[in-house]
Amino acid sequence: MQGLWLQDQHVTFRSDLPEPQPPEGEALVRVLKAGICNTDLELLRGYYPFTGILGHEFVGVVESEGPWQGRRVCGEINVACGDCRECRAGRPRHCERRSTLGIHARHGAFAERLTLPYENLQAVPGGVTDDEAVFTEPLAAAVEILEQVHVRPSDTVVVLGDGKLGLLCAQVLATTGCNLMALGKHPSKLRILEARGIRTALITDAPALRADVVVECTGQASGFAAACQFLRPRGTLVLKSTYAGSLTVDMSRLVVDEITLVGSRCGPFGPALDLLAQRRVDVGSLIEARYPLRDGVLALEKAAQPGTLKVILEISE
Amino acid sequence: MQGLWLQDQHVTFRSDLPEPQPPEGEALVRVLKAGICNTDLELLRGYYPFTGILGHEFVGVVESEGPWQGRRVCGEINVACGDCRECRAGRPRHCERRSTLGIHARHGAFAERLTLPYENLQAVPGGVTDDEAVFTEPLAAAVEILEQVHVRPSDTVVVLGDGKLGLLCAQVLATTGCNLMALGKHPSKLRILEARGIRTALITDAPALRADVVVECTGQASGFAAACQFLRPRGTLVLKSTYAGSLTVDMSRLVVDEITLVGSRCGPFGPALDLLAQRRVDVGSLIEARYPLRDGVLALEKAAQPGTLKVILEISE
Repeated sequence: MQGLWLQDQHVTFRSDLPEPQPPEGEALVRVLKAGICNTDLELLRGYYPFTGILGHEFVGVVESEGPWQGRRVCGEINVACGDCRECRAGRPRHCERRSTLGIHARHGAFAERLTLPYENLQAVPGGVTDDEAVFTEPLAAAVEILEQVHVRPSDTVVVLGDGKLGLLCAQVLATTGCNLMALGKHPSKLRILEARGIRTALITDAPALRADVVVECTGQASGFAAACQFLRPRGTLVLKSTYAGSLTVDMSRLVVDEITLVGSRCGPFGPALDLLAQRRVDVGSLIEARYPLRDGVLALEKAAQPGTLKVILEISE
Repeated sequence: MQGLWLQDQHVTFRSDLPEPQPPEGEALVRVLKAGICNTDLELLRGYYPFTGILGHEFVGVVESEGPWQGRRVCGEINVACGDCRECRAGRPRHCERRSTLGIHARHGAFAERLTLPYENLQAVPGGVTDDEAVFTEPLAAAVEILEQVHVRPSDTVVVLGDGKLGLLCAQVLATTGCNLMALGKHPSKLRILEARGIRTALITDAPALRADVVVECTGQASGFAAACQFLRPRGTLVLKSTYAGSLTVDMSRLVVDEITLVGSRCGPFGPALDLLAQRRVDVGSLIEARYPLRDGVLALEKAAQPGTLKVILEISE
């Protein structure tokens, strides 16, 4: 099988990968398209020591026999045991024994085929294109903000960062009707949001804001201090980025201003697919480049260039 | 007037301080007793550049004429303008133009007399002793945790640190009926909590806990990492300590485990006085030493010795 293999922070395209054999309870999925995420790039930089097939954003078709056969699906990337304390407490995405597609203990989606438990699959509605369905996973991560934080219609909210995740988070937050401002560094990207009626500004030209909620999507440690300056006392700062390294926080600022920091990761697929099906978010404008799987190393290099939006791997038809 | 004067991180006992003249709307209060807080010691270490009379925990008697004259009071330490965005939003303790008793732009309580606006005064109920009333301000800071975080009866909660603030926070959290465990380093201090029916353990002997809420009261940057190890994914970590310096946070841990950090500072006096009047907390056991005001420098040195509980300044009768 063909796929992109990560080992020792180095990726190679390989044609000799063994065909995946789905264990009992898992589906064999032929991957149609996959998306490159910043987490893939962070894995290359050593964020987490993973060896195997990269990739966790995908749309595919179930090949294994049974009621799912032939259906177009995307899939929840965290595979839970169903039996540990976190699973029993209703937090399967935090399962203590979880594997995570293309990130931890499970081969990923940058390959011709993958396996996932049937319970992880989500059928893609007919009105959602393959391109759009690739965004389900990152869009679910944006929806997670609303799972964790009560964003009120009267709240002033700032999204900081106009990368892939920032553009998705801003569109999801706009659904609440809050007083939203997206701040970034790239006029061309901010225009994607302006076309959706979202107010934007360059960070360097930002008005003096004292937001109730700031969502930090810059993917850089420096984003934290920038985010703080737009936050009111007792405000909430949502941290969406995972990256290698530590964050230095002004402890007394956090306590004196009674700031709440909320770490936020993966979210629910159902509401994300609903947003796509209802065309309440625009993900198509985020696609910047497409590569065939065999050029996957080039695709990763392209994705790693600063300012690149979504790079799609075209894997099968 | 006699008082303890802080200048350039150095405290002196002075007898030549000018008598405070209460401006319109403020009361003149004769201080009966005052308590030394870790924040006073942090000011000595340069946490914040304050010059003036130290001290913010006190009980006193109103001397100025009017309806408050002769009443025994304690006082909210943040003096708000009533007109800025924070005041208008109902967050006067975060007033943008606030002064803070003995901490910022306002002389404090380690003196024979102080002034505070009438609206900052709280009458001390008859059943609350002077000693107890001195604890109103730090007890209110412990109550603030319940203002900010919904602690459920079914929650497992850990209080980390058995210093003054930790012992108050543990007792306040115990009022919720949650499954509480206080962790510290000093068996003699933990016994104060055990006498109230609160489970305790030495940090070094702590059982494997995965708490829903951890309250970090160690007053040290190292407490943050210790607190994290007792927290479950999606748990809440309350930060109560203010100190000079920064905190280094493992960013990916925060995001991957979706931890919420809540900075927490000053709280409401009314509920704190109620707890004292109803004898639902024991503060008397926290008093370790008493000094007359003229020995205030010695009192601060005593309070700065590691492991010292509350040091009281006896100022007038």
